[in-house]
Amino acid sequence: MSDAAQNPKVLLERIESLLQTASYDQLSIELANARPSDIAEVIEVIDEISRQLIFSSLDAKDAGEVLDKVDDATLGEVIEDLTNEKITDIVATMPPDEAADVVAELDDLQTEEVLEHIADEESDQIEALLKYGEDTAGGIMTSDLVQVKMSETISGAITQIRNADPDDAYFHVFVVDDGGKLKGTVGLITLIRNNPDTMVSDVLEEDIPAVDVSADQEEIANTFRKYDLMVMPVVDKAGCLLGRITIDDVVDVMEEEAEEDVLLMAGTHPNELDTHKAYEVAKVRLPWLMTCLIGSMVSSLILLYFRDSFSSIAEFTTVMVFIPAIAAMGGNSGLQTATIVVRGLATGDLAGMEIGQIYIRESRVALIVALICGLVSGCLVSIILSMHTNGHSENLHVGLMGLSVASSMFIAIMLATSLGILLPFMFKRIGVDPAISSGPLVTTANDIVSNLTYILLTLCLFRQFLS
Amino acid sequence: MSDAAQNPKVLLERIESLLQTASYDQLSIELANARPSDIAEVIEVIDEISRQLIFSSLDAKDAGEVLDKVDDATLGEVIEDLTNEKITDIVATMPPDEAADVVAELDDLQTEEVLEHIADEESDQIEALLKYGEDTAGGIMTSDLVQVKMSETISGAITQIRNADPDDAYFHVFVVDDGGKLKGTVGLITLIRNNPDTMVSDVLEEDIPAVDVSADQEEIANTFRKYDLMVMPVVDKAGCLLGRITIDDVVDVMEEEAEEDVLLMAGTHPNELDTHKAYEVAKVRLPWLMTCLIGSMVSSLILLYFRDSFSSIAEFTTVMVFIPAIAAMGGNSGLQTATIVVRGLATGDLAGMEIGQIYIRESRVALIVALICGLVSGCLVSIILSMHTNGHSENLHVGLMGLSVASSMFIAIMLATSLGILLPFMFKRIGVDPAISSGPLVTTANDIVSNLTYILLTLCLFRQFLS
Repeated sequence: MSDAAQNPKVLLERIESLLQTASYDQLSIELANARPSDIAEVIEVIDEISRQLIFSSLDAKDAGEVLDKVDDATLGEVIEDLTNEKITDIVATMPPDEAADVVAELDDLQTEEVLEHIADEESDQIEALLKYGEDTAGGIMTSDLVQVKMSETISGAITQIRNADPDDAYFHVFVVDDGGKLKGTVGLITLIRNNPDTMVSDVLEEDIPAVDVSADQEEIANTFRKYDLMVMPVVDKAGCLLGRITIDDVVDVMEEEAEEDVLLMAGTHPNELDTHKAYEVAKVRLPWLMTCLIGSMVSSLILLYFRDSFSSIAEFTTVMVFIPAIAAMGGNSGLQTATIVVRGLATGDLAGMEIGQIYIRESRVALIVALICGLVSGCLVSIILSMHTNGHSENLHVGLMGLSVASSMFIAIMLATSLGILLPFMFKRIGVDPAISSGPLVTTANDIVSNLTYILLTLCLFRQFLS
Repeated sequence: MSDAAQNPKVLLERIESLLQTASYDQLSIELANARPSDIAEVIEVIDEISRQLIFSSLDAKDAGEVLDKVDDATLGEVIEDLTNEKITDIVATMPPDEAADVVAELDDLQTEEVLEHIADEESDQIEALLKYGEDTAGGIMTSDLVQVKMSETISGAITQIRNADPDDAYFHVFVVDDGGKLKGTVGLITLIRNNPDTMVSDVLEEDIPAVDVSADQEEIANTFRKYDLMVMPVVDKAGCLLGRITIDDVVDVMEEEAEEDVLLMAGTHPNELDTHKAYEVAKVRLPWLMTCLIGSMVSSLILLYFRDSFSSIAEFTTVMVFIPAIAAMGGNSGLQTATIVVRGLATGDLAGMEIGQIYIRESRVALIVALICGLVSGCLVSIILSMHTNGHSENLHVGLMGLSVASSMFIAIMLATSLGILLPFMFKRIGVDPAISSGPLVTTANDIVSNLTYILLTLCLFRQFLS
């Protein structure tokens, strides 16, 4: 295990030295002995020419397993290098669900040519899978499975398993009625432990939830996790068995969904993982940064607008130096709340809780946090200004500034917390991924709101007490 | 499936109405028919008295399954409610790994009393599991498994499976030599497909990586995902079989690790999920906010310090209004880079890549982003100031401010990107979770650096051209 983690690096070095000395026979042997996942990692980081040499040294089956393992960006690049004949050979060796993922990367003409040269049964399966959305049950299921009739005995089921591909019945066989409607599943362990003459219908597990072919993958992942499932049958609207989703597909989905949330929260997008080209990554990140830039310029305009409302410009500068603190604290406490709510919505942990309950819990936390941060910041401001009373400030001034920063900080944290609770639910309602509510868009909105609160409050306090 | 997702809410309503009418017999029936995962979700949100009534209506086995499913905060609360006798009854029904998680929540005296009343074999297993760190292979493995000797035939292995608990051999049997050393695994499908007289040693899969009992759970999760594993044997230093980790345990680990990263990035800590009490959540969040507050006060001190270095205070205010923009843009672009690097390190995707390669990729992206953001912000600043030239600014001033903001923005984005690449690696090296490099700590550090860059650069430009 510990050496499994280092494998790709060692493998990379070995492959590079074999390529340098043009020892292609040796390379083929090295690759045949390596795990496809490790070869995939090497392919992801190596240069284009080496990649082509590696692929020409792999047999079709190994190449298929490697393609299933590489990231989307590399998959696209590898496919561009390969001839249609080579792609056809590789796809023919892959299970239908993995084959469909590769074929989905081809253009229409290539797809037609590749599918034409593959056995009819397999190409029909691939075409059927291609029709489903990538993020739905249909998009992640495989149609390879062992299905037995209700009237079958265990020994009949075992014969069917022996005649099928070993991968088709990894955990379970699926039981259907004469019309193809799903009735339940039987685990391999049940087949082994029971008498061969037992009827399949007597050992049927009817409890495993089936999923509609159009269901969203995030919902599927949450159901797998919640019920500790290993496999889930996929059915059409009429309840007929179409395929199965196994837990290893779901592991990839879970990783993808967590990744998507994190990237959206950081103000970028999973699309940036589909490419290795710097300008395409920049194209994904720039819209967020530009929105943020425009938002922060609005902050600047607000500050400029209020500059002359203060009785002296010296007074204004004293107010200004605490802008970064107010904005940062509002932003960070809003981010904490939004993150808890966003992840709760994504993993379904808040499903049983009403928005009201969450609001009460988070408001209590916010109240404590806002009170303490307000008090501490008020004290810090008073201390800092007392040390810097170089003619610009006096005692009343110092006191007022402390009061002003303390109360603005309190209000900014309370407002940011409210936004942190409400926005994720609002985004979810209108069909936008709630994760963007912890992203720079909302942080920028928070900045504007906190700055405005602070300036207005200070202005009121100063006008009240200093005029 | 679609109705499975709504189940907990419906169940909650039904249970609440049964409790209101004190229909406890009806409640027992309702609970016996519900899935433990759904009951767990109800337990997590319902009030304390209802929770106690629900637990007294559950039989020990169901109660154990519910306890395995509730979150850590609720588990602690439920255990406080239960008597030692009830806990003992429940723990006795649970598999050793799940039982150990419950026993870990008890104090020393309770642990002793509970373990005393449980069958020796089971309590020994639980005690052995309790010794391992919670986040290690030993902490997540179960010691229940079917192990067969190399000299066994398939029919012998099948007999052993029939005599064991059905949960013990869900996927595989483990094959050991006479000294208990792990030799490999055999899948149930292999047992079914091969002749009963075949020797186990002939169908052995030796390829499944074994993991040391002290290995970290994040490393284990990455290996599972990378090689699409279903099960992993756990061994001691001598290679002797101690237990097994199955993919459903790993799914929980993956969720936990992703959650931990997200929470650390948001400036809080997974500990806040262990409690429902507002002041304890606040106690987790406040240290981050306080550090951030002190950091932003350092920004304020810097601004105060440089106030008198400018030739006029009016000039200073013009400089000040663009502080939020510089800080926000530096912070956000640093966050984007840090997030990519942090997630890459967590999922092992960057394992094959050297820091140099990542630096080149991200620097290219940063260069494009910084150039564009610099140019756009320079133009925006010039436009905004031209509209606001109310005596404070003139043409040369406007031009210089544009130049100054543009170049500071460029430098701030490049610096923040460098920090975003270097800090995660640095934190990992010193054994701190890299996820905190996208948290408020580093955003605050970024703020200070960007503000300082901006002020110093502007001061230099102004002194050069305006004096």
